[in-house]
Amino acid sequence: MIFLNIKVFDTTLRDGEQTPGVSLTQQEKLRIATKLDEIGIDYIEAGSAITSKGERKSIKGIAQQGFNAEILSFSRPLSVDIDYCLECDVDGVNLVVPTSDLHISDKLKITRDELIQLSNNAVDYCKDHGLIVELSAEDASRSDTDFLKSVYLSAINHGADRICVCDTVGILTPDSSFELFDKLNEDINVPIAAHCHNDFGLAVANTLSALKGGATEFHSTINGIGERAGNTSFEECVVSIDRLLTNFSTNVNIHEIYDISKLVARSTGVYIQPNKAIVGENAFAHESGIHSDGIIKNSATYEPMTPELVGRKRKFVIGKHMGTHGLENRLKEIGLSVNKTQLQQICNDIKELADKGKTVTDVDLHVIADNVLEINHEDRIKLDELTIVSGNKIMPTASVKITFDDEEILNAGVGLGPVDAAINAVKTVDAFSDVELIEYHVDAITGGTDAFIDVIIKLQKGDKVVSARGTEPDIINASVKAYISGVNRLLRD
Amino acid sequence: MIFLNIKVFDTTLRDGEQTPGVSLTQQEKLRIATKLDEIGIDYIEAGSAITSKGERKSIKGIAQQGFNAEILSFSRPLSVDIDYCLECDVDGVNLVVPTSDLHISDKLKITRDELIQLSNNAVDYCKDHGLIVELSAEDASRSDTDFLKSVYLSAINHGADRICVCDTVGILTPDSSFELFDKLNEDINVPIAAHCHNDFGLAVANTLSALKGGATEFHSTINGIGERAGNTSFEECVVSIDRLLTNFSTNVNIHEIYDISKLVARSTGVYIQPNKAIVGENAFAHESGIHSDGIIKNSATYEPMTPELVGRKRKFVIGKHMGTHGLENRLKEIGLSVNKTQLQQICNDIKELADKGKTVTDVDLHVIADNVLEINHEDRIKLDELTIVSGNKIMPTASVKITFDDEEILNAGVGLGPVDAAINAVKTVDAFSDVELIEYHVDAITGGTDAFIDVIIKLQKGDKVVSARGTEPDIINASVKAYISGVNRLLRD
Repeated sequence: MIFLNIKVFDTTLRDGEQTPGVSLTQQEKLRIATKLDEIGIDYIEAGSAITSKGERKSIKGIAQQGFNAEILSFSRPLSVDIDYCLECDVDGVNLVVPTSDLHISDKLKITRDELIQLSNNAVDYCKDHGLIVELSAEDASRSDTDFLKSVYLSAINHGADRICVCDTVGILTPDSSFELFDKLNEDINVPIAAHCHNDFGLAVANTLSALKGGATEFHSTINGIGERAGNTSFEECVVSIDRLLTNFSTNVNIHEIYDISKLVARSTGVYIQPNKAIVGENAFAHESGIHSDGIIKNSATYEPMTPELVGRKRKFVIGKHMGTHGLENRLKEIGLSVNKTQLQQICNDIKELADKGKTVTDVDLHVIADNVLEINHEDRIKLDELTIVSGNKIMPTASVKITFDDEEILNAGVGLGPVDAAINAVKTVDAFSDVELIEYHVDAITGGTDAFIDVIIKLQKGDKVVSARGTEPDIINASVKAYISGVNRLLRD
Repeated sequence: MIFLNIKVFDTTLRDGEQTPGVSLTQQEKLRIATKLDEIGIDYIEAGSAITSKGERKSIKGIAQQGFNAEILSFSRPLSVDIDYCLECDVDGVNLVVPTSDLHISDKLKITRDELIQLSNNAVDYCKDHGLIVELSAEDASRSDTDFLKSVYLSAINHGADRICVCDTVGILTPDSSFELFDKLNEDINVPIAAHCHNDFGLAVANTLSALKGGATEFHSTINGIGERAGNTSFEECVVSIDRLLTNFSTNVNIHEIYDISKLVARSTGVYIQPNKAIVGENAFAHESGIHSDGIIKNSATYEPMTPELVGRKRKFVIGKHMGTHGLENRLKEIGLSVNKTQLQQICNDIKELADKGKTVTDVDLHVIADNVLEINHEDRIKLDELTIVSGNKIMPTASVKITFDDEEILNAGVGLGPVDAAINAVKTVDAFSDVELIEYHVDAITGGTDAFIDVIIKLQKGDKVVSARGTEPDIINASVKAYISGVNRLLRD
């Protein structure tokens, strides 16, 4: 079979950074660009040179790395913009020219002829200065197709190397996207790219249709970030091409997708919802009984791809919808073998907890299992007293009184904040020296200052990992509670 | 024009609740169901009766409300499941029968013939007990189409009222979805529904294609929650039908979409990413200069629909990509008129702050504008000292020393936690009595206990609202800092 090789144009550092509230430092931009290059992205739009001094420093820093990828800057068809691009030593520009009458008349307040003149002059100026030009028609999907074609053909005559069709407000459907690209493809003999937005949730589908219609390049951002509802999501598009469009391929190393997704989420602070395809926390998590049962018998029943394909791992979650098969499997994993009656009882007890609206953590499962199996574990560590003093002129300080196997231990700790101080005070107990806090998570707090705070932590001792939770209106107490319940669990194993 | 009326089947309370880690209480389920009924959903799957005692109480509670919507429970083709459904007084069942060879042989370990027998018996049993039956073929998209058709036709012969095609692992594309529904539609004369999953990010597009292929009903969940990458997102699908598929319509009151999205997000704790179409925080937010400029001239330039259509409001965000037009507009809103030089200077200063990777809040904008305009505002409130004592056996208590217009004020407060106590101590100052804290937000904290915490609050005084931020490794100091800087801003106006 012949594969049609599709080029990926990444605009995380431009359209992605235009996500309201997102600003990346020079270091962050370089780190992301390095990773983009590593995983096989063809074109990297490093930013928009006109934006700011800092932005130009970032773009130049990226352009000077000698990456395999072509490095571009966004540019309006104005010499002031193009001059700034040249200053950054980029390989090329993403020259964005609005083509809908709405944009031409209401935004630019010029005529169609003046627009073509503006576009051609800019292409000339770029080519005179040795820049690769990808001419992007903004709002192409709401433009008169004949006029759109004439803008492209004219730009190509003036030396534009590639053209791009922007569905600026995301109003294409898979059908209309195919039609538009198919029509343009008849007359245009340079590579055609698709740049889709996700206002109706259709960006990935529209991009795939564009490829079927003749586009050989697409624009996307990691995690689909960008203005408003964002752009075509890189990971969804690349994996869809790999798995569903069997005669297309990309140069992307698909196994690295999860890594770059996490890097961008961390750097931009744009959180990925758990039900996001491919990279969301739950994309390979299973809770319901029917699903877990199926997965255990044959993972293809409820997974369209293995999690490993995109650099991830499967996980089973304990909760109200689980069945006995998944639960038995989980209990085995933690070293407990149970008979049928015990299994059913544990299952019922967990469902009862979940009916109260609670997430069920490892520690909850252990406590319930221990109760049913009548395993009487005395907690080895008990928190007797915790006191914290903090403020704007005080070093956050915590004192704890802990009973550890009947021995009373008094300890104190300081930290950057009161939670840090409290955990440091607990941690200094000798017996915990090989317990490591590997994850500390608090869900976003919204509402009032008196909201209940759910702290979920993961602790590691040797190769054992355990999750535990503390829920209190006091973030410090919740954190310490979670920590001590997790350590008790680890010490027991 | 004739509109084809499409029925909406909501499975937020079943597939949606199967999101790993999500459990709703009876009250939460009833509240969501009430809202679903109010906004015009046709069919509500209230849960899966077999799951637990609490679940049955919830379903029964919903079934007894006398809603306009048809109330259903999920059911396997087993009398034990159906009996539980009957116990809940539902109108009908979503009878789920796996039809792919993979599911039949590897999961159920039976033959095709036995599967048809199982399915028919279940339909008979349901119809004998007066239930409406929607027969859902699980993994239909990976089933042999002829066999799939025979399962449906056989069930319809036995009295099934509607049938549903499940793309259980989300592997359809818009093209293959159209083909499948078009083929089924040739021979099936009861309503056909589409149930899509979002593993490749294509659920909404596949659902729209299914409607073009002859489906007259679709399954969806609010915010697209569900197992793994979730289900077809209700809001994206309904708004796409309303705006893009001009010969289809639904019974949904589209203006209520944002309200129900927020209700479900709050109840389930499943966060909506800011770049989620329609309901994400940024779906109608604009930062970049080009976009804000366009929006001010004509909002259609960068919005495919008005935010009001779905019950929302537009917002302009101050940041590194903004241009002078958007900024001037924002400054006018806060009552500052500036000349061209001042505008450019404010713009540069904001970009410099943003280049450091910071989100720019209202207070940042005010501080920068005041500096440029040489408006010398002495802060009326200064925090001199803040001390907090907290712990597991201590009532969280805070003391503050504040200077308010040269008057030194000493105050103390208690609270549910140390943040609550600190804010209460600050609030008790008389001059703040008419300032209300209307939003307190902390982003999810991940990483260690020493992470910097970004507290963003909104305060209201009369009809003025201001946002302010405090960033510290200490959540208490960050909260108080944000509060005082916001109040200073409000007192100045």
